[in-house]
Formats: sequence, C-alpha cells, structure tokens
Amino acid sequence: MTSPKERISALREEMSRAEISVYIVPTSDFHDSEYVCPYFEVRKFLSGFTGSAGTLVVSTSEAALFTDGRYFIQAENQLKDSGIALMKIGEPDVPTVREYVKKLLPDGKNIGFDGRVITAEAGKAYEKIASEKGGRVICNKDLADSIWTDRPTLEHTEIYVLDEKYSGKSTADKLADVRKKMSEKKADVHIITALDDISWMFNIRADDIECCPMVLSYAAITADRALLFIDESVCSDTVRDYLEKNGAEIHPYDEIYSYAEKLSGMKVLIDEKRVNYRLAGLLKDCETVSGQNPAQLLKAVKNPVEVENIRYAHLLDGIAVTKFMMWIKTHIGKEKITEWDAAVYMDGLRKEIGGEHFIAPSFDTISAYGANVAMMHYSAKKDDCAVLEPKGMLLVDSGGHYFEGTTDITRTFALGELTSEMRFHFTLSLRSMLNLAAAKFMEGCRGENLDVLARGPMWEHGLDYRCGTGHGVGYLLSVHESPNSFRWKLSDDRPQSAVLEEGMITTDEPGVYVEGSHGIRIENELLCRKSEKTEYGQTMEFETITYAPIDLDCIDVSLMEQKDRDRLNAYHKMVYEKLSPHFEGEELELLKKYTREI
Amino acid sequence: MTSPKERISALREEMSRAEISVYIVPTSDFHDSEYVCPYFEVRKFLSGFTGSAGTLVVSTSEAALFTDGRYFIQAENQLKDSGIALMKIGEPDVPTVREYVKKLLPDGKNIGFDGRVITAEAGKAYEKIASEKGGRVICNKDLADSIWTDRPTLEHTEIYVLDEKYSGKSTADKLADVRKKMSEKKADVHIITALDDISWMFNIRADDIECCPMVLSYAAITADRALLFIDESVCSDTVRDYLEKNGAEIHPYDEIYSYAEKLSGMKVLIDEKRVNYRLAGLLKDCETVSGQNPAQLLKAVKNPVEVENIRYAHLLDGIAVTKFMMWIKTHIGKEKITEWDAAVYMDGLRKEIGGEHFIAPSFDTISAYGANVAMMHYSAKKDDCAVLEPKGMLLVDSGGHYFEGTTDITRTFALGELTSEMRFHFTLSLRSMLNLAAAKFMEGCRGENLDVLARGPMWEHGLDYRCGTGHGVGYLLSVHESPNSFRWKLSDDRPQSAVLEEGMITTDEPGVYVEGSHGIRIENELLCRKSEKTEYGQTMEFETITYAPIDLDCIDVSLMEQKDRDRLNAYHKMVYEKLSPHFEGEELELLKKYTREI
Repeated sequence: MTSPKERISALREEMSRAEISVYIVPTSDFHDSEYVCPYFEVRKFLSGFTGSAGTLVVSTSEAALFTDGRYFIQAENQLKDSGIALMKIGEPDVPTVREYVKKLLPDGKNIGFDGRVITAEAGKAYEKIASEKGGRVICNKDLADSIWTDRPTLEHTEIYVLDEKYSGKSTADKLADVRKKMSEKKADVHIITALDDISWMFNIRADDIECCPMVLSYAAITADRALLFIDESVCSDTVRDYLEKNGAEIHPYDEIYSYAEKLSGMKVLIDEKRVNYRLAGLLKDCETVSGQNPAQLLKAVKNPVEVENIRYAHLLDGIAVTKFMMWIKTHIGKEKITEWDAAVYMDGLRKEIGGEHFIAPSFDTISAYGANVAMMHYSAKKDDCAVLEPKGMLLVDSGGHYFEGTTDITRTFALGELTSEMRFHFTLSLRSMLNLAAAKFMEGCRGENLDVLARGPMWEHGLDYRCGTGHGVGYLLSVHESPNSFRWKLSDDRPQSAVLEEGMITTDEPGVYVEGSHGIRIENELLCRKSEKTEYGQTMEFETITYAPIDLDCIDVSLMEQKDRDRLNAYHKMVYEKLSPHFEGEELELLKKYTREI
Repeated sequence: MTSPKERISALREEMSRAEISVYIVPTSDFHDSEYVCPYFEVRKFLSGFTGSAGTLVVSTSEAALFTDGRYFIQAENQLKDSGIALMKIGEPDVPTVREYVKKLLPDGKNIGFDGRVITAEAGKAYEKIASEKGGRVICNKDLADSIWTDRPTLEHTEIYVLDEKYSGKSTADKLADVRKKMSEKKADVHIITALDDISWMFNIRADDIECCPMVLSYAAITADRALLFIDESVCSDTVRDYLEKNGAEIHPYDEIYSYAEKLSGMKVLIDEKRVNYRLAGLLKDCETVSGQNPAQLLKAVKNPVEVENIRYAHLLDGIAVTKFMMWIKTHIGKEKITEWDAAVYMDGLRKEIGGEHFIAPSFDTISAYGANVAMMHYSAKKDDCAVLEPKGMLLVDSGGHYFEGTTDITRTFALGELTSEMRFHFTLSLRSMLNLAAAKFMEGCRGENLDVLARGPMWEHGLDYRCGTGHGVGYLLSVHESPNSFRWKLSDDRPQSAVLEEGMITTDEPGVYVEGSHGIRIENELLCRKSEKTEYGQTMEFETITYAPIDLDCIDVSLMEQKDRDRLNAYHKMVYEKLSPHFEGEELELLKKYTREI
C-alpha cells in the first residue's frame, strides 16, 4: 500500500468491520500536543499531506482534508490523485469539520476516531452529532494501526532531571502550589495530560518530540499523592530518586486509564479542552471540574532563578545571532550562500556558542530570502531553496533550548540595496515592535488590551499582519506557550489571554509581508515586570531580554519620530553593553557599528 | 412612619405574613432601567439613602444596603441610626448581595422580592440559593406597596412620534430588521422590556422618566405581529395612526403578562440579563433563546439621517457651551457665581440656543469647582455648593436631548491661576483624549482593544481614572447606551463591548482626579466611520462631532509632542469653522482667541 488511495480504501474496510461510517483523523497525540512524534503522524500517512496541521475525515464514499491558509498550495499538490478533497478552512462556503461530519453521517450510523487523540470537548461534540442521528461514537480503536504496517514505534527517550539551579523550584514546592489551586476548586484529584505542564511540575525533560524537550507522560495529583505515568525503562535511578524525594510515585505510562476508572465518585479537575476523550470518558461517574490546568499559569510566571537563567540564555543567543549577522553581511556576494546554508550556519553558531548550555534548536530555523519571507511558515529545503544575492532582505527566525531556558528571535538583514518600500516597511515594523516594548500599563491588562500598541503604527498606513503579535515562551518546554500572548482579536478558539504578570515572557514580533515581493519580521522577547505602585494601582512594564543588533542598514531614519530613535538607541546601547565583553578586534568594531546611535 | 427604622420594621411584618425570611429591594423598575421614575424609588423610601444605585436586603434580624464607591460617604451619613448596615461593594471582605443573601437565609426559609424589578438572570440565582436551603422564591408581591401609603403613582406621560426626518427609518423597516435577526435565531416571538429598545423600534418618545425620553412599555414581535403594550390613555390618534400604519398593535401596558402566558410551546427570544424575572417565569413552557435584544446593536449603529441630525444637535450644543465659556471667563471675579449658578446658566443657554430643537437636558448638569471635581458624581446643591473664585478649575459636564439627537460634553475651564500640577494633569488628559480620537484601526476592534490609547499617556506617569473612558450615546434615548464603549477591563458584569461599527457614537472622556485638590475631564463624542479598505482589511477611524473650544489657558504646551499640538490645532480649526458663522463682534474675537493655533 503505497498510495493514499490504497490506504484510504484499506481504512474503509476497517471502518466497515468496526461499524463506523465516518472516521476522523486529527493531527495530535494522546496529549493534545502542538508537535507530535512520528508514531502519531497517522493523518500524514493516510493522506500523504505532510503539513503540520490538518484533519482527515473519511466516509464510505467521501474523503476530505481540512487545513489552514498556510498549507493551501502544498495540500493541493500533495492531495492530487488521492481522491481526497481539500477543505480550505476559513474560506467562504467551506464547512467546519463538525459541520462536514454531520452532513456526511447517515441516520443510525456511527462516528469513529481514536478517543485518545481527540479532546474531551471535541469528542462530546461528535457524540452529540451521532446521537442526533440515532448513532453513536466508537472511539476505542486506532484503525490505522493494522494498515500502517511499518508504523514507527512510540519511543520514550531517556528522562533527565532539570536541576533546581535551572528550574528554581523543587517538584515538592510546585506540587504544593498546584494542590493549593486544587483545594480552591475543592478538587480531590487533578488529572494532567499536557506534556509541558507535567514536565514543568516534575522538573523532568526528555527528547521524545523533536524541538520539544518534554516527557511523554500523564499525571494525577491528589492531596497526598502525586502519580507520574511514564515509561519506567527510560527512568534512571537518579531521576527516580529525585521524584521519590519530592513525593512523586512512578507508574507505567498506560496505567493512567485504569487509574482513572477507579476514581468514581470523586471530584476531578481536568481541562476538557486538553484532556483526551477516552480518558475523560472514564471519569463518567466523577464530578468533574473543568478548567485550565493550574500548572499553565504557574509555569508561565517564571521564578527569579528562571528569569536570571533566561537572561543568560539570551546572552548566548544574542552572541550567536550577532556573529551570524557579521558573517552574512561580510560574506554576501563573495561566495554562494543559499537560504539552507544560512540556516545551517545559524544553527552551527548557536550550538558552538551555547556549548554545554545548549540542548537543541527550539524549532526548525526559518531562513527566508526576498519574496519567500512573505510566505508564512516558509521552510527552505536543502536542494530547493533560494540563493542569496547582495540585494534585498534575508529573514532568520530561530531559537534554542538551553538548560537556562528557551529563546526565540527574528532578525531581518539587508543583504544589499533595498527599495524605499522595503525601508518603509522595515522602519514601520521596528517602530511597532519598540512601541509595544515601551508600554507602561496597569496591572490587570491582557495581551488584547496592548496589541494596538504594536499594530497601531501599521494600521495608520492601512497595513497589518495576519497573525498574533506575540506568544508566551516556555522554559526548556514549548517555544509557544499559553496562556499569555499579544492578540487583539478574541474568538471561541482563542479566548482571553492571561493577565500579564511579573515574570511572564512574551514575544513581540510585528512584521510586514508583501506577497511576491518581500517580508520583514523583527522579534524580541519581553519580560513583564512590576514598575512603580501609585495610588491608582500597580503599574507594569516590559524588560527586553533579547540582545542582538537590529540592522540599521534597513532603516529610513526620516520615518522615525524622536521617541522611536531614543528607544532604538537605548536598546542598542544595552545590546552593546551586554555583548561587547564577548567580542574583540574586528568583530568588536562591527558590533560598535551595528549598535551605533542614530 | 417617618423613619427608615419604622419602615423596615413594617416591612418585616409584611415579610412574616408572606412567609419571607430575606427580602431584596434593588434600584430598578419593570424594565431594568438605569434611571427610574418616583414610583419605583422603593429602596430610597425604605432605607432613606437617596443615591442613584443600591440594593437593600432585609432579614428578620438584619438589614444591609449595598452601594458602590461613588456613594460610600453619602450612604454612611444617610444610614446613621437606621439600623441598616452599609455594605461597600468591592471593598475587601464585603460579600456580594448574593453571598449575603445566602448567608442570611435560614434552612427551609424563603427569599422574597418583587419579581418585576429583578432580572431573570438574578432571579434564577436567588432561586438556586433558596432551593439549596430547601426553601423557595416568593416574587408575586411588592411588599412596599402597603407600607408606602403616599407612594407616587406610576405615571405615563403623553406619547409622541419621532418623525422619520429625525429617526431616519420607519417602524415598519425597523421591525423588518428585527425580524431578520429573529429568523436567524429561529425565534417565533421576541419579547422586549428595555424601554430604549422599544422606543427606538416604534419611533415613539415620552417624558415618563426624568432626562430619559422613553415610553414605559413592553413589546412582543412575531413574524407577522408587533404588539406594543402601553398606557392607551396617553396615546393620541396621531400616534395610533403612525403605529397602525407601520403594522403595530396597541395593547394595555400590563397585558404583556397575560400575553406571555399564552406562548407555551413557542420559541421565544429574550435577553435574560434585561427581562424581568416574573415575565420570564411565565415563559416556562417555551423554548427560550437568550441573547441581546437585536435592537440593541441595530439602534447603536446610527443611520445616515440620524448622523446628520446628530451633527446639527452638536452644533447647537457647541454654541451653547462656547457661550458658557465666554460668560464664565469674562464674569469670574466680577460677581458672585456658585457651582449651582453655573449649572443653571449652562442649562439656560442650552435651552435658549436649542429653541424648538431642544427637549430637555440629557442628565443633571454636573458643575464642580476645585476639589469637588475629584468626587465622582458630585452634585451641587442650590443652597450647599462652592462659590467660584478667580483661580483653579471649573468642570461642567452637561448634555441635551434634541429632536436631532442626544449630546454629552465635558469641558474644564481655568478660572484664574493654576498650579503646574493642574496644568500637567490637564495637558495629560487632553493628550489622552486626542490620542484615542486619532485612532485608526482594523474593522473588528472593540473598545477594550483601543482603551490603552487614552490611558497609555496617563499610565506612563502612574496616573489613571477609575471609570470607563467612554460610553455609547442614544438618539433621544439614554445618554448611556450599550453595547459600544471604551473600557479595557472586562468582568462578568462587563462582558466584551461591541465591535466598533460605522455609525456608532462613543464618548472619549479621560480625566485626572486628585482627592482634596482638583480634577479634570475633557469629553468629546466620537463617530466611528470607515476609512480606506486595503488588502489587509477595512480600516476604521473616528470623526469628532463635539464642537467647543478646549481651554488653552489650562495647557502646558511644553508637555505636548508635535503630534499632540497638530491634533489640537486641527480640532480647533474645525471648531472655528463650524461655530464662527454663529458668532459676531466681541464673541467672534473671543472664539478666535479660544481656538487659536498653539
């Protein structure tokens, strides 16, 4: 079975055997993770579409793949001759997955999916659709299992303890914090399936998912027990000792399901938007309290030890990005450099400078030249990517996982001559970025209250960018972390972001993207901290913790207000002070030049 | 029975007779109105507290009045010796009304209130509390009725039709718009109790509530009927003709209740946050669709005829306020003028200039001098108010109901020498006001996204104001109109404000209030309108529709950026162009001076 057509046909046989009329395959794992390991790439296997997001729906007669704007062109190509229709999410007249499932399902027939890769919330919605048609939901089987003969195994990699000199807080103390929140909600048990929440709480990390150093695991917390469900074979004595000393018990990964079955009658705290449907179904006889995992907010507020570490991670990161800037600006036009080469060089520098502090990139480096920048989520391929020329702009968006934390930085460099439109757009992006970074605001503000500070300068010119202004960043966890962000628009899928608290870190990355021509993004990370307290309340501000020059060759100074120039000069002064001890000779001269006052 | 003590004691006898252990008296009418007519001032009658907002809770042994920060001092004075405890809403350790009721209610006992002055949502919450204690809710009687022997009657005043040259749309067309929204929600019947929604829909006005030209009424809309429940005795033939011609039927005011009883089995659209509990209770056998009244959003978006009219109302208003400015600035120090005198003079000017266009003030004029400004909702009394001196600042917040619409404007005037702190705070308030007015933003933004533009300049200095930045304004309806507003902070009580649409009018009124010293507020009204449409979306902007000089004597120009000066100069240029044809001689010279470039 090498073609999607054959695979879908095999799936239909399995469906018929299981009495399923409509089968749903999302892109997810048992933990509702953003990125998944190869074992979970079922949707990709069945459909042939390789994008990072999409849902496949198969009925006895139809098949459709739902994906978003980032992937329309790619999906169209990859779905050719597969018999699978492309559903462009958000386009006029395109139904949602749920509407489509409802339409497809005949009366009296059943909906199927692997209940472990669908959230409780989504599962309940399908339950309702099926019951309205007089059918039911069948969710106890992953139908792909018997078709996908060479399916990769679900690998659990060696677990390590993140030392408290990095995490700043013991697991025992974190458990105490979580229990306090549980007791406020009068919950007897709290079940957690989100990998970042668990890895944070137990101070453990692994390499189970690429670029995501979390441990495949489940957890259950009660007033006096803390059960961690992991693959025991990858748990060394050191890890075991640390966990036991901190009051955690180790249980086999899969035993969460039998554990959950025994909770009948208890009051269980779960996040129905994150926990999987199968697991939630086992809690039928419990009183469930649905709400965000307490760990989500607790881990978003970085503690002082973490903050100090993160500043150090950014220093290493800043040195690497600055060296990259020096290299690209002095080598362009003198040798052949492709987008791919630039990404490899950036990754190499980060690894070299990071040394023993560095663990892995925090995501695949984006290296995009010229018109490619305007394609969101552009990914250069080694053998199919642009050659850089001594003109136009190169965007590099990259980051690292260090023991001292996770980074995410974007710089856009002039490789030679720029058009005045490019300079205008760069200067606008910079002013937007600086304006948000300079915000002073009252405690209680959320991202949606402040986003206009970044977008306002763009809106003034009728420009905008079709994505959020910034996201939270985990500590050696996911580079995209909830619940803090900068987004003005709320929706059912994107409810209020968190109140900005001292210790939260959020990216600030406005940009301009002009299809077929060029694109710009400038990204710094902002640490939220308290400013003075007055009779009107506690004021808050941001500290920029990203230390790398912003390319002055891209700026049209005449478009900057004095305020903008002051802000940029203050930023470059700080960058110089941070970085200069780590440069000498010609490089120090270049650093001086890159951070000069304008 | 002249003292609150005696009245509460009489109430307790009534409660005992009715088997009620805890009785609740809110400040409201059958329509959840912001302001009520004398008949509904039960809370004031029973407690002796005269503030505009508060809830009285009486049990067999305790009595408490809940009110907010505007009224702490006043309530404390007025409740002395009443035996009624003051509950300061929002202060630490002060329970909410519902928490307090829950605490007071003994097991097996009942909660009572007049079900017509409590919203369905609140009534349901009390129902839950009572049933948890094994009791029930008794809501069919207004217990004050037999105690309050000289209770004013519920007066219905003469109704008039608001001509379509003012309303810009016929009742038939408005009904069609409402029916379209009903059909989207698949509702058979829509019951409306909000007076502004009904008065808007049927193009009728009256004088039932002071400063609120709405008609005491209920309405019910079906696909082919439009029932208006009013006091028929105040409905002239002209009104009757207009209504009948537009497909409306007239029914007696109270018959809404018997009408509602007959709707069993139908799908009814009501706003549970607005409709009263008794009425909602009669719909028990209906399927209810709860949601904002469609009229709320429809009437917030002013039509082109209304917009043109409103601009004219603001011209009349601007002339009056400018003449007031000339009078106060040329008369101060030369004769004795009190806060009260200033208010009377302002009201007189508005009436005189408005002539036949003018109907009534849109709220009681606030005239506050010096430290009095810092007391929010300060109300000068004729025989107990400050005498104006030729120093410091006078704030006048006033507005009018005209056939051409409703206005709301605040100006703060220098009466003589100011401290540098006063100038600083005035300049800051002005910069805040201008900054929000200059916003250019993407379609889809709400008030919470833009509020930082007004507050940001204040927050920068650790200053803030403890109220919203602005509210919607009705058209010859309530001067405070939902659903658009400028407020950054959402809460359960204050959910998301509406997406700002072309035709919406919102006030922009930042200020600084320094207790015991001085206060400033500068208020213009902003009309939202479309700006250009680009590939990134529809951009929006505001047109300022308030035309009166901002007192340059209060400004410290050195604290203004060039951008601020440009904005103020552009505003004053427009004010001069609008107003100058209506002034001559010395007054014209003064207008020139007041609107000069800085």
